[in-house]
Amino acid sequence: MNGAQALIRTLVGAGVDVCFANPGTSEMHFVAALDDVPEMRGVLTLFEGVATGAADGYARMAGRPAATLLHLGPGLGNGLANLHNARRARTPLVNVVGDHARSHKRLDAPLESDIDALAGTVSGWVRRSLAPADVAADAADAVAAAASAPGSIATLVLPADVSWEDGAAVADPVLARPAPRVAPSVVEDVAAVLASGEPTVLFLGGDTVGEEGLLAAGELAAGTGARLMTETFPARTARGAGLPDVTRLPYPPEMAIAALEGTAHLVLAGATSPVHFFGYPGVPGHPVPEGCTVHVLSRPGEDGVAALRALAALAAPEAKADLLESSRPELPTGELTPRTMNAVIGALLPENAIVVDEALTSGVGLMELTSGAPRHDWLALTGGAIGDGLPMALGAAVACPDRPVIGIQADGSAMYTISALWSYAREQLDITTIICDNGSYAILEHELSRVGAQGDGDRAAKLLDLGAPNLDFVALATGMGVPATRATTADELADQLGRALAEPGPHVVVAVLRES
Amino acid sequence: MNGAQALIRTLVGAGVDVCFANPGTSEMHFVAALDDVPEMRGVLTLFEGVATGAADGYARMAGRPAATLLHLGPGLGNGLANLHNARRARTPLVNVVGDHARSHKRLDAPLESDIDALAGTVSGWVRRSLAPADVAADAADAVAAAASAPGSIATLVLPADVSWEDGAAVADPVLARPAPRVAPSVVEDVAAVLASGEPTVLFLGGDTVGEEGLLAAGELAAGTGARLMTETFPARTARGAGLPDVTRLPYPPEMAIAALEGTAHLVLAGATSPVHFFGYPGVPGHPVPEGCTVHVLSRPGEDGVAALRALAALAAPEAKADLLESSRPELPTGELTPRTMNAVIGALLPENAIVVDEALTSGVGLMELTSGAPRHDWLALTGGAIGDGLPMALGAAVACPDRPVIGIQADGSAMYTISALWSYAREQLDITTIICDNGSYAILEHELSRVGAQGDGDRAAKLLDLGAPNLDFVALATGMGVPATRATTADELADQLGRALAEPGPHVVVAVLRES
Repeated sequence: MNGAQALIRTLVGAGVDVCFANPGTSEMHFVAALDDVPEMRGVLTLFEGVATGAADGYARMAGRPAATLLHLGPGLGNGLANLHNARRARTPLVNVVGDHARSHKRLDAPLESDIDALAGTVSGWVRRSLAPADVAADAADAVAAAASAPGSIATLVLPADVSWEDGAAVADPVLARPAPRVAPSVVEDVAAVLASGEPTVLFLGGDTVGEEGLLAAGELAAGTGARLMTETFPARTARGAGLPDVTRLPYPPEMAIAALEGTAHLVLAGATSPVHFFGYPGVPGHPVPEGCTVHVLSRPGEDGVAALRALAALAAPEAKADLLESSRPELPTGELTPRTMNAVIGALLPENAIVVDEALTSGVGLMELTSGAPRHDWLALTGGAIGDGLPMALGAAVACPDRPVIGIQADGSAMYTISALWSYAREQLDITTIICDNGSYAILEHELSRVGAQGDGDRAAKLLDLGAPNLDFVALATGMGVPATRATTADELADQLGRALAEPGPHVVVAVLRES
Repeated sequence: MNGAQALIRTLVGAGVDVCFANPGTSEMHFVAALDDVPEMRGVLTLFEGVATGAADGYARMAGRPAATLLHLGPGLGNGLANLHNARRARTPLVNVVGDHARSHKRLDAPLESDIDALAGTVSGWVRRSLAPADVAADAADAVAAAASAPGSIATLVLPADVSWEDGAAVADPVLARPAPRVAPSVVEDVAAVLASGEPTVLFLGGDTVGEEGLLAAGELAAGTGARLMTETFPARTARGAGLPDVTRLPYPPEMAIAALEGTAHLVLAGATSPVHFFGYPGVPGHPVPEGCTVHVLSRPGEDGVAALRALAALAAPEAKADLLESSRPELPTGELTPRTMNAVIGALLPENAIVVDEALTSGVGLMELTSGAPRHDWLALTGGAIGDGLPMALGAAVACPDRPVIGIQADGSAMYTISALWSYAREQLDITTIICDNGSYAILEHELSRVGAQGDGDRAAKLLDLGAPNLDFVALATGMGVPATRATTADELADQLGRALAEPGPHVVVAVLRES
């Protein structure tokens, strides 16, 4: 058995049976070994950022890591932005990065670069396999490292000859480190805070924004008067009718500050204490009010759900959570604005959907307008590196083939990883992508004024404008094998989205937006 | 004057007046400052790999650095693959990477990452500007570091508040370190080797494959019998009628080994000793025959042209170089194969063209079929990280607006940076792109067999196949504002390429290739 075969069999044995791949020469034995191990599903992507973003989306939905297969330093480089997002999501993920054969390494061949240094910037675990006899154990360790709470990126560097040489054997899975329980004394301390009657926000993120955590949080809100709020961009949030109404900390600093105003106690459950995405002249770096005390119920990687349940049993034993009733906005008609677009989405969102949200500025009202929709899961742009939406939807659809995936995708951001659409078509996945076509980097137009920059001239404006020429996303999608339509009114969007959702397979609906 | 204004004015003063940009929030003051400094041309790209590849192509043609503007670690990550190619080309290039404001840095905001570590993997020079008073001097140092022989990547990390705070002033340019002369004794030693009469190859690369170096090398070949050969992928080669005929070291190891067989002396002029791109089972790592002595006339960064001229004066004082006469292949008709495609290109290549070659396997015969064409320059994939061709053509066209740019672009590789086409349209550049549409990662199909992998099953094959669905490059190009046509015969290609070359502005011609 060669190294590649042992590696793939070990991955499969440890529960990693999907590999999002963009291979090159040094990965050819890994590719060949896929023929020997049919349990491993290889999904081809045309760009490494699609592979890494897909692995992120996959693990957020499947709850276990996928592998990526990347080609040396440049391949890892192309995948870094979405690995950054995965790192911020604490997604378990195993990168296999091919490298030169060991004997070739010292020759400084054209593709030689410092893979280990690159990998270190996004990985919680990096190892270079040194021999075929080691590679299976290395792979088992990689999966355990990735899957250990709270989840992280494990990068295994695989020299080509370690892959092609014989003398390898399959290794047993290694147990991942589970999330440790929170100490009862910590729960008691937080219960005392909640009992104080002072204005308290229970700030949720990480593992606590799934159904179980939210239901416990809902009991706490009902029983203690604490307000519930989540991180701005949680990795995966359970949402919809039957769950408590939880607001999200807004992205814009002034709105985030307003949202936490008057809070005396901020209790963190699975989340870290919030900070603004960027620093701005004359604005503090975080929205926590002066004098507010920050308490930690559970850190990322601890068992926040169990802590919330213990806390609810202690602090709100009799409480019943207020749960959202089923409600949808009416289907709007007329002009297509971010708000009417989001009302259409709220009106039509199917049962059990997975929503991948990279709407950015076009997301105005999106959360409110979908809050009473049927139960769904929501994946957000955790790390702020745009271009994650299309790939995450790919991974989510591979993880959950029986659930509809809805991508809500800003136009500028879509262009970073647009070739994900080809993989949708190749795999015939049930993904409906709404492209929010406003013809600009609208978020940057907002930011330009927010940072106090002048930039009112033509030359600055030209760097934020996506017109001249306009991007024709219908042509781009159909050019990659995904049927696409263009909507210029709310009525057209409702019609086209309805039909796209009703048909299996991938669809793109381009929403041509006027300023709201 | 704020930091951004001083930075841009200093760059312009040092001769850096083009910036390929993909900005985000932390770069908004840089963007705003473009309105104050009209001498700096900002060119928007939709993806950072386009910006970095364009800066590479620009500097290869302009002979001086362009700047890039990138957004924190993820933006730099997206640009890394083409920075890798630029590093291997020894291209002078100045990255400006925005970062969080200094006060925000310690907060571990979502976009926080180790920019400095990333930058170190591709840069010869990295600095973080610490205050507005420093930024101009930092910029002047960056340009000098980039432009110092042999050319390298300088990365300046620019905190947002260093950009927006006042108190900065413009700095004077700093002199770049010129290429040192080669010692006369080294030239004399090599002259003695050439006088030995033993089989000698003069192996050219870096600065020696421009017109002057090649003409001196041609005299040496004529006067001493030495064979001339270049690196496999030189950064920029002068080619065409009126220059000596110089073969290129082939890419495939077996062909490279055959090309150097029987060589007793390998004299390096501006090139390093050749190694294969990859290691293969049972194949030595380089093509230099056993017993062949390697001599260094000039190292990269030394003045190789002067060394060659001194060597020619010493070793071949009376010799006249054999120069290629003007010749073109006949326009082929019938089936469109890589060979007939390349004959069409050879027949129609315009005077003074810049050819950007990422044809990969479709490049069969391309060098021979263009060798007698009118004088042109040839840019190659120096670092082997695919996806450089479309961006390099963008940069070359910005550098040389009066010269036609011809991109010969493999289909799979095109998809890494396809949004470059939008920037072609935005800037209305005279770039004609031929997409070599063979529907597969053909080079990997070759490599799969070369590495001795089995991989004859469907699952491996599916990871190398770009069909199902087919990529419609006409739709992709027109969707980004570039007129495009599709050729399925040699006649159609000749017709469409002729028309594209005759019209100003960008054009895409898709060559649908059958196996040759």
